[in-house]
Amino acid sequence: MAVSYCVGVDLGGTNIKAGLLDADANIKSKFSVPTEVDLGTEKVIGNIGAAVKRAMDEAGVASSEVVGIGIGSPGPLSHNRGLVINPGNLPCLQNVPLRSAIEKHTGIKTTLENDANAAAWGEFWAGAGKEVNDLVMFTLGTGVGGGVISGGKLLRGFYENGAELGHIIVQSGGRRCSCDQHGCVEAYSSAYYLARRAEELVADGRQSSLKAHIDAGEMLMAEHIVEAAKAGDELARQVWDDACRYLATAIVTMQHVTNPELVVLAGGMIAAGDFLLDRVRKYFRELTWSLMEDFPDIRFATLGNDAGLIGAAGCAWQALKTGDW
Amino acid sequence: MAVSYCVGVDLGGTNIKAGLLDADANIKSKFSVPTEVDLGTEKVIGNIGAAVKRAMDEAGVASSEVVGIGIGSPGPLSHNRGLVINPGNLPCLQNVPLRSAIEKHTGIKTTLENDANAAAWGEFWAGAGKEVNDLVMFTLGTGVGGGVISGGKLLRGFYENGAELGHIIVQSGGRRCSCDQHGCVEAYSSAYYLARRAEELVADGRQSSLKAHIDAGEMLMAEHIVEAAKAGDELARQVWDDACRYLATAIVTMQHVTNPELVVLAGGMIAAGDFLLDRVRKYFRELTWSLMEDFPDIRFATLGNDAGLIGAAGCAWQALKTGDW
Repeated sequence: MAVSYCVGVDLGGTNIKAGLLDADANIKSKFSVPTEVDLGTEKVIGNIGAAVKRAMDEAGVASSEVVGIGIGSPGPLSHNRGLVINPGNLPCLQNVPLRSAIEKHTGIKTTLENDANAAAWGEFWAGAGKEVNDLVMFTLGTGVGGGVISGGKLLRGFYENGAELGHIIVQSGGRRCSCDQHGCVEAYSSAYYLARRAEELVADGRQSSLKAHIDAGEMLMAEHIVEAAKAGDELARQVWDDACRYLATAIVTMQHVTNPELVVLAGGMIAAGDFLLDRVRKYFRELTWSLMEDFPDIRFATLGNDAGLIGAAGCAWQALKTGDW
Repeated sequence: MAVSYCVGVDLGGTNIKAGLLDADANIKSKFSVPTEVDLGTEKVIGNIGAAVKRAMDEAGVASSEVVGIGIGSPGPLSHNRGLVINPGNLPCLQNVPLRSAIEKHTGIKTTLENDANAAAWGEFWAGAGKEVNDLVMFTLGTGVGGGVISGGKLLRGFYENGAELGHIIVQSGGRRCSCDQHGCVEAYSSAYYLARRAEELVADGRQSSLKAHIDAGEMLMAEHIVEAAKAGDELARQVWDDACRYLATAIVTMQHVTNPELVVLAGGMIAAGDFLLDRVRKYFRELTWSLMEDFPDIRFATLGNDAGLIGAAGCAWQALKTGDW
């Protein structure tokens, strides 16, 4: 039987990452090109189409051997309608039926998935979760994103807006989040908010080595907090511990909702390594119940920046299998 | 084609409710008999078997017309293994393979589901949720139970212990729950805990009309809180408002996790009527995000005390359809 392939596209506000993969998640080509979002809808669609072609060309694979395209795009979007709805950093794609546009451009069946779901599918298909059937992924970056695989399937929900795990409320009446809720896990455990929290505490007069950065006119970053906490700075340690504890609290909530075998942590913040993972595991054990030992394993993602394109290709393979494009 | 039937059994610590239903959820017979849990494992299994036979006899249906039995039992249990594990108020059923025991006793294919999941399936199949495909149910009784239907299927999770929605953490570091966690929604919004909370506030010296009940040696009940809150008692109103607000907080979390079309409230506390429902809806609107209007409708369950047996029969019909007994 002839070998066939799928193309995965990880669509971002700055770059389009694309690659061609076989059914066993082997990457046959992989590259990144500018999205050129300022040049408008048609240009961005053309760039995605060109990236698909280049993914085939670089791998030396003919269009006839490609059985599907998967696109991971910023949301909100509708997988069912193939529609990008209101992607913050891709304003030209607002209400664009991207699935049909790419199918028309390439002549290849296409599936559309939100980027966080696609990355979770990548880790499930070919990364940290490839031995399990039920996982929850938290992506710890500027915000906190999420993806849920339940019984081997992506959990999308009625409004196709499920697994927005950054907006689980862990502290009723707590810090205001950018989404207008109070006490979201994102408001404590995202790189953006933990730095803001440290700035606020310094502004309140608390002593900290972080003050030197602020006095020098720098914007505090999560890396500064990690560095200062490791060096024993008390304020930084408090902020970091709180970030880990609130994340563990959200994991306890997910343990009781979708009851996964595995929780995968991904995103830029996992660069903190064991300084993050050990604390999250410790707090999870402290915070979870004693009724059952239904504890998920907590591990880091393994696909790094490729999770998006691998997952997008994986979504195309899955659509081929289920018929749900 | 001959009409066929399923028997639903709602197994409780005190009574076994059983009934015979057709594929359209019409109840052909229905009754309740004592569980007789003190008489041991064999007696309880015999009583379930006898209840199945009586359900057929009362409906005038022959065993050959019955295509399945569904049993809703207190958990934790394993649907996949047909095993009751450690049901608090049914100690004689600890680690009992109830599915095979009932199949042997009756000669009819049997499926086993935890009682909260079965009740949620009942509302989905024949009650408040029969027009939707994605719902979340909170059962507000002594504790807070839960059930989730996602994409038309029960969400069970890897450890088959999902949808334990009472143990969603809404207040990090908050009130201790019977499960050993702190800040569970159950610790604020269950009938048991909201009465305890009122007692604690009175013991702390707060003025309240509830003190008369306590001084009279009565144990406070949720009904007392509702009555006093309606009459304008400030302490009772605070406890009731908090119970509604924390429940709404857990609903916001579920909005972002399984993203349902409908949230169903069930259990003894819904007797409070609009005094509960209006507040939960109001707090939900106050607490939820402004990014998307993916708001679930929030409604009361409609099947009352029959939800368990209807849902158990519905689980049998579903098992017949999917082959997943």
